[in-house]
Amino acid sequence: MDDKALIEKITREVMAQLKDSAEGTVETPQPAFLETASSENNNKVLVPADVAKYIDHTLLKADATGPQIDKLCSEAREYQFHSVCVNTTWTTRCAKNLRGSGVKVCVVVGFPLGAMSGRSKGFEARHAIEEGADEVDMVMNIGALKERDLKTVEEDIKWVVRACGQRALLKVIIETALLTDEEKVLACEIVKKAGADYVKTSTGFSTGGATVKDVMLMRRTVGPKMGVKAAGGVRTFADAVAMIEAGATRLGTSGGVKIVKGEEITSGY
Amino acid sequence: MDDKALIEKITREVMAQLKDSAEGTVETPQPAFLETASSENNNKVLVPADVAKYIDHTLLKADATGPQIDKLCSEAREYQFHSVCVNTTWTTRCAKNLRGSGVKVCVVVGFPLGAMSGRSKGFEARHAIEEGADEVDMVMNIGALKERDLKTVEEDIKWVVRACGQRALLKVIIETALLTDEEKVLACEIVKKAGADYVKTSTGFSTGGATVKDVMLMRRTVGPKMGVKAAGGVRTFADAVAMIEAGATRLGTSGGVKIVKGEEITSGY
Repeated sequence: MDDKALIEKITREVMAQLKDSAEGTVETPQPAFLETASSENNNKVLVPADVAKYIDHTLLKADATGPQIDKLCSEAREYQFHSVCVNTTWTTRCAKNLRGSGVKVCVVVGFPLGAMSGRSKGFEARHAIEEGADEVDMVMNIGALKERDLKTVEEDIKWVVRACGQRALLKVIIETALLTDEEKVLACEIVKKAGADYVKTSTGFSTGGATVKDVMLMRRTVGPKMGVKAAGGVRTFADAVAMIEAGATRLGTSGGVKIVKGEEITSGY
Repeated sequence: MDDKALIEKITREVMAQLKDSAEGTVETPQPAFLETASSENNNKVLVPADVAKYIDHTLLKADATGPQIDKLCSEAREYQFHSVCVNTTWTTRCAKNLRGSGVKVCVVVGFPLGAMSGRSKGFEARHAIEEGADEVDMVMNIGALKERDLKTVEEDIKWVVRACGQRALLKVIIETALLTDEEKVLACEIVKKAGADYVKTSTGFSTGGATVKDVMLMRRTVGPKMGVKAAGGVRTFADAVAMIEAGATRLGTSGGVKIVKGEEITSGY
């Protein structure tokens, strides 16, 4: 109950501050957090090749095949993306493909609905880490958040926090398209409190993806030290730059190759 | 390799026979299997209330809340649907809600992409059964089928077959919308060979749902004794009857209440 009161208080305060700064924040050319979170980009114009290190090169379709996964891995190697992001059936294959490349293996867990039992999310993550996953993108229990069962939301995340331990980085997808602004703030607070490393906007399988406004809201809520991943709808170099300037420190996209080449792509993630 | 050759041979034969009967099958008023599979419906006109026992009353949305799940359960009790079909985060709640009602708890596993590791699907199923699930609807590894890695498809199912044992009924979703007719037949053969109890058309989260033609194809492939579940797009009493006449022995729908009342519904599953 103390935790709940604390979270509600923080939520109210963040929401009040957001109301003060209103819509104006979207136009702010240099958000304050960038001074600490992404200082390497200050006073520097990003070019397409700079974006590669932000990208989780993503293929999550139900009918993706082994050869398509192999291609994803070889592209990630070639362009030195941060990771490949895949479903857990592909963990071993990606770990083998990417050995020695410096490219990480990122897997999704409880994906994309987030309504799998917490214990099963923990198992899926643990098993993937044993098979070579370096990063885990889990989906939050969205229904529990919707009914303000914050204890369940937090315990669900903690199953995966424990599975990751010090061995894997944990991102929690809050699925912004299904949440009110107040719920987005609340979700970010719980993710931070539960001990995850990143908040992530979207699965790419819901009704909408990342927006600049949501990334700014999430960055403002979690502060400068946590990671923020923008995913879903990041299709062009301009999208990527907008997300990074809004506070994203990682991008999830299937369009990484075209983004780093500065080409336009027509369908994303 | 023997298994593979066998499956390929059966597939060729079934496909050849289907070609013989061509489109004509759709109009057949009384498919042959009904004599054994659903003989209780022979020579009888179905009325809306008859359909209740076929229905898995379904709520799988990412943002479903506890009160919505409770409502689902009380409707299932009231109309005596076969089961409620939910994500595994809701297993315990449904088992408590439905104790003594005769209504089963059906959970989805590896849902809806089917690209979760087989071991994790097995764990999710086992844990749900321990929490009170009576039936498990898992999604097949679709990508492995697409690249004809039939060994992986079968092993993936067997993880869940072992978890279910004699304690729970197992349905395998083949996601027809993503498959060619040949792949649908192949999928049904593997599901049968792996020892599952039902083949199921769709998750309701892909590009399409159940069709009469697919249900007939699946029934013809698995023979009269296995279950066939039609899910996705079953919205009206007429839809329900068409699916049952095509060979379905179970229906997955969120529109069960309106179906058994004989009302039209506008959005499904």
